[in-house]
Amino acid sequence: MALLFYSEVDDGEAWRRELMRRLPGLEVRLWPDLGDPKGIEAALVWRPPRGLLASLPALKAVFSLGAGVDDLLADPTLPDVPLCRMVDPSLVATMGDFLLAVALYYHREFDRYAELQRACRWQTRLPRPLAETRVGVMGLGEIGAPVAERLRDAGFTVRGWSRTRRSLAGVACFAGATERDAFLAEVDVLVCLLPLTPETRGVLDAELFARLPAGAALVHVGRGGHLVEEDLLDALDRGHLRGAWLDTVPFEPLDADHPFWRHPRIRITPHVAGYGLPETGAAFVADNLQRLRDGRPLRGLVDRARGY
Amino acid sequence: MALLFYSEVDDGEAWRRELMRRLPGLEVRLWPDLGDPKGIEAALVWRPPRGLLASLPALKAVFSLGAGVDDLLADPTLPDVPLCRMVDPSLVATMGDFLLAVALYYHREFDRYAELQRACRWQTRLPRPLAETRVGVMGLGEIGAPVAERLRDAGFTVRGWSRTRRSLAGVACFAGATERDAFLAEVDVLVCLLPLTPETRGVLDAELFARLPAGAALVHVGRGGHLVEEDLLDALDRGHLRGAWLDTVPFEPLDADHPFWRHPRIRITPHVAGYGLPETGAAFVADNLQRLRDGRPLRGLVDRARGY
Repeated sequence: MALLFYSEVDDGEAWRRELMRRLPGLEVRLWPDLGDPKGIEAALVWRPPRGLLASLPALKAVFSLGAGVDDLLADPTLPDVPLCRMVDPSLVATMGDFLLAVALYYHREFDRYAELQRACRWQTRLPRPLAETRVGVMGLGEIGAPVAERLRDAGFTVRGWSRTRRSLAGVACFAGATERDAFLAEVDVLVCLLPLTPETRGVLDAELFARLPAGAALVHVGRGGHLVEEDLLDALDRGHLRGAWLDTVPFEPLDADHPFWRHPRIRITPHVAGYGLPETGAAFVADNLQRLRDGRPLRGLVDRARGY
Repeated sequence: MALLFYSEVDDGEAWRRELMRRLPGLEVRLWPDLGDPKGIEAALVWRPPRGLLASLPALKAVFSLGAGVDDLLADPTLPDVPLCRMVDPSLVATMGDFLLAVALYYHREFDRYAELQRACRWQTRLPRPLAETRVGVMGLGEIGAPVAERLRDAGFTVRGWSRTRRSLAGVACFAGATERDAFLAEVDVLVCLLPLTPETRGVLDAELFARLPAGAALVHVGRGGHLVEEDLLDALDRGHLRGAWLDTVPFEPLDADHPFWRHPRIRITPHVAGYGLPETGAAFVADNLQRLRDGRPLRGLVDRARGY
């Protein structure tokens, strides 16, 4: 069996090495070295060019290198074969590290101290206990739920919101459209971890920002399509939002002329919050490849109607 | 009994409220309202003016609002009465929050992403597991030891150094001058939590920086007097050190003209890493006041010869 690997950001050689260590009979082809397309039965991809997957006549399954599959579903030529998102402990771990880092950054006012440093001002503000910062997590799925628990265990006060009701010990959980405003009303740091679907496109808009308390910060680790750019700039410039940490933006890579880069209250990281590392992600992919061979159910299978 | 409170950064009213709640008979006087100095038997202070304590004829003990007492010991007029440092769980907790925040900041390369943001460059680097970042803690006392354990529990690889040998599970411990270079050789993020004594003055110098691996970061939460300013600037400008986070500097508040403020690889926070909050610190001080009344041994008593 041959698998095609495509990603402009992941380390293809490391993935090939880790996959072949687990499945010695597997042939891993790194794009653009496709060889004979007829021999490729599986693809492991991140943001492949439109039409690439449709050009593989023997394709039996598509595996995403990320947890989000909206980019793949947006390709009208996507073959009608099983599509699986990444389910990998290292993706949850790195996302948790990142969100802990950013939540602590805002909790300890590193944004305000950076502003004071630009003004050469030494101005002390006493730190407060972690529990006084309320982190709100939107999206309590395979990444959001463990991340909310990790922030809770670190000492933050955590609340969560999801489309369908979830229950997490020590986390105040809200569900559906009717409870969204009550959730937002007591959030100091809002984390967006939603999947991108027709329902969630543009969810980070003026109406949502207005429901947050004055001085809240946004941490966006969902999908670029959630964000209404002009509404964010307006909420920041009016001073309603204290800051925004954007790990994803509507068009990546962010254009060098984009106002986000130079905005004093926006921090940009280039879509690096959560990653499936080859060392652990390969175990998940190898297991799914074995399941594909054996005709057993695949893990992380995407419901195309739902969009995730 | 009357206690004099002096601090330009702590909330005197909150300390008075918390202390009087615990010792209803106590009279707390907030400087400059000394009343009759002859009635003041104890002082709770942070960086009092030279000579203030010497002007209190009935003084029986001095309590520091901070863990460090070098500023008090530097006052040649300091009365020869028992001197106690602050021992407070909230001081350890806030210092731990701060160091976790800064260690994660460097681990997740937020410094490099800030530099890329200034250049409007979207350049991805894959995150690594926490255990690949080695945090070295210098000073394993009442703050350093629990902080090292907290960083270890968070997932970092932690090593520690102290003057006399300490032992902490899961932390590679080094001791004394002979083991210092071996400790420094494998540190990515160096945390200075030493007390300031004649022995440690100027310890953060060119010779120490040269023992760190290229690309290491310094997090200075010790005392300003540990740092040789020109040696730090040189190590940063030569690119040997990746960055420095200074929560303390030799002369506080830092002068508006000081080159530290505008250095792209230096982050300044105004001595806010660890704080004894009145809600918890008052319990420690109240207990010590009760011990003073009863003639029992005081907690956190400073050894003036040792300097801490």
